[in-house]
Amino acid sequence: MTVGSGSRAGSSGPGAATASSEGGAVLDPSLLPPAVCVLGLGLIGGSVLRSAGAHTEVFGWSPTERTRGLAAADGHAVVDELDAALERARSTDALTVLAGPLTTFESVLRRVDAVAPTLALTDVGSVKAPVEALVAEHAPHARFVGSHPMAGTAESGWAAGSATLLHGARWVTTLTEDTDLAVWAAVTQLALGMGCVVVPAEAEAHDAAVARVSHLPHLLALALAQVGASGGQAPAALALSLAASSFRDGTRVAGTRPELIRAMCEGNREALLDALDDALGILGVARGSLASTGSLAKLVAAGHEGREHLDHRTDGLGRVLLRGDDLVDQLLAIGAAGGHVDGLRRDPDAAGSGSGQPIGLQVSGWFPED
Amino acid sequence: MTVGSGSRAGSSGPGAATASSEGGAVLDPSLLPPAVCVLGLGLIGGSVLRSAGAHTEVFGWSPTERTRGLAAADGHAVVDELDAALERARSTDALTVLAGPLTTFESVLRRVDAVAPTLALTDVGSVKAPVEALVAEHAPHARFVGSHPMAGTAESGWAAGSATLLHGARWVTTLTEDTDLAVWAAVTQLALGMGCVVVPAEAEAHDAAVARVSHLPHLLALALAQVGASGGQAPAALALSLAASSFRDGTRVAGTRPELIRAMCEGNREALLDALDDALGILGVARGSLASTGSLAKLVAAGHEGREHLDHRTDGLGRVLLRGDDLVDQLLAIGAAGGHVDGLRRDPDAAGSGSGQPIGLQVSGWFPED
Repeated sequence: MTVGSGSRAGSSGPGAATASSEGGAVLDPSLLPPAVCVLGLGLIGGSVLRSAGAHTEVFGWSPTERTRGLAAADGHAVVDELDAALERARSTDALTVLAGPLTTFESVLRRVDAVAPTLALTDVGSVKAPVEALVAEHAPHARFVGSHPMAGTAESGWAAGSATLLHGARWVTTLTEDTDLAVWAAVTQLALGMGCVVVPAEAEAHDAAVARVSHLPHLLALALAQVGASGGQAPAALALSLAASSFRDGTRVAGTRPELIRAMCEGNREALLDALDDALGILGVARGSLASTGSLAKLVAAGHEGREHLDHRTDGLGRVLLRGDDLVDQLLAIGAAGGHVDGLRRDPDAAGSGSGQPIGLQVSGWFPED
Repeated sequence: MTVGSGSRAGSSGPGAATASSEGGAVLDPSLLPPAVCVLGLGLIGGSVLRSAGAHTEVFGWSPTERTRGLAAADGHAVVDELDAALERARSTDALTVLAGPLTTFESVLRRVDAVAPTLALTDVGSVKAPVEALVAEHAPHARFVGSHPMAGTAESGWAAGSATLLHGARWVTTLTEDTDLAVWAAVTQLALGMGCVVVPAEAEAHDAAVARVSHLPHLLALALAQVGASGGQAPAALALSLAASSFRDGTRVAGTRPELIRAMCEGNREALLDALDDALGILGVARGSLASTGSLAKLVAAGHEGREHLDHRTDGLGRVLLRGDDLVDQLLAIGAAGGHVDGLRRDPDAAGSGSGQPIGLQVSGWFPED
């Protein structure tokens, strides 16, 4: 897969991105899915059920009777049986959202393959390569685009969700060369409608990225909380009483519910091991330097520079308009470069917009200007 | 040194703490130092110079002409020469505050020993055992009580200070069996007057504690920032664009000025190595478990529990009143138990309040109730 070339504003040739002089996001309701079927009504699924209704028909299912009752009591369309939900999704051509825990995906995907094998399908799990593999194995005919809406996880369950939870969040969509862009457009249009911006990525790159910026922070916070609370050669209560903002900030996510941390981190094992090994290597070198020479110069310089990159990550992003035959590559290049998508519509000039043809799209987004 | 017994409310015998039925902090202006001399007018020293004037005569010195000019222009009493400042401190019996960088302490202490060897002396450095050792070597006759006011360090210099910077901060005071309690009372009264609460501690315990809850958080934040910004097997820009609050919080202190991080962490090398080794050990075990069994159960449980301890660290603290001959032990017990001092006054019943006798004090504070 080619990533990182051919999508720059001002570059030429078919598929090149061109700057949108007017700027601003564009939305096209005709690209929304005809309906949305949400399978699992916890924090994210429940929030999608609540907010998608402003844009299209939406209905949901939960394996838990109590959750179905809560959602129905709040006025939402809820189906009691999974097979009935999938049958309704098939008949309405609904975009179906796997929103339960990853551990439930295999059994649900088997029903998808039995009842509605060619569904337009996405999920909202926090790891993406394992989900792609599950779909390929258990529902190989589904038209799948993976999703990861990056919203808070400190609470869970139907009651914790809201119609505005996803507002302002980054919604990762995973793409491959085989991605059905009509399904990607439906997922993206839905996400944009709920107030998200969309980050296209390869599944493996997503998993490696979140291992570093989401899962590793949890491991370090947990270790720090344990080291601080143990006190070492100081009375433990003295150490905690002297803890100020550096310790509070550094341990905040250690307060997340243990089962949520474990599901998230253990579910991304390979990528997390790679990130953890990098951290252990860096800290080990720093330990040696501190012990032998008394200096932390290298760690401090590199870490400070890394934090500066975070603070300036959106500097230099400029607006681009993507279109053309190599749209998947262009989208992946935007995500890989730290950019995102904030609008899309049908391309009036595209040849292939007829039935059975690849969909022609114009995608607006943000991309580094140099 | 005996720590952790004999100071509980309701225990009996001479020196036992007794609960103060009226509660609340008590202040005694007669315990304030007759004057305060601040040597070094950066963030902390400048803030002390600004705020101490509400309570007693105060004057300052900085080795930097520009800083002296700024402080004088703001209306503060500033002395141009170190020896002149020390002479004035001697003649006014001023509590003298070493507020420059640790690297300047030796030369200043040599002048103390030459000009005013028996000064009442404190410092505001972020490590305490090395300062105790420097004082013992270079100004052995000074009546020294170490201090560490735990206020922000993101900025520095005269302009960054303020009369309210220390309000609400924890002001650590270090004590030994040889501590002159009149000097400790002067330091404490000054700190309370500036809006701090006072945490008594042994110097080594302080250094071990801050290594865990202040210095180690910086090392982990620096390593995390570097791992996130490198991206690993993901494009680095993608990783940073997916960074949410866990990464931002976990790397915040990596944005502190590098020279401040280095001075603080490198100055507490031995204690920091101990804390870092604990963290590396915990993370190494977690790495092994994740790789071999896929489980992070132990890390998550222990880390979550540690964070819970932080959130509940002040639960169960009740008011105590300390007095009696073993006051140093009682004070250290309060600090070791996670408590603090918020008031003190002369003990009207104490026998030894005459000139040349140990000062009789009543100290109010907070201590775990069981």
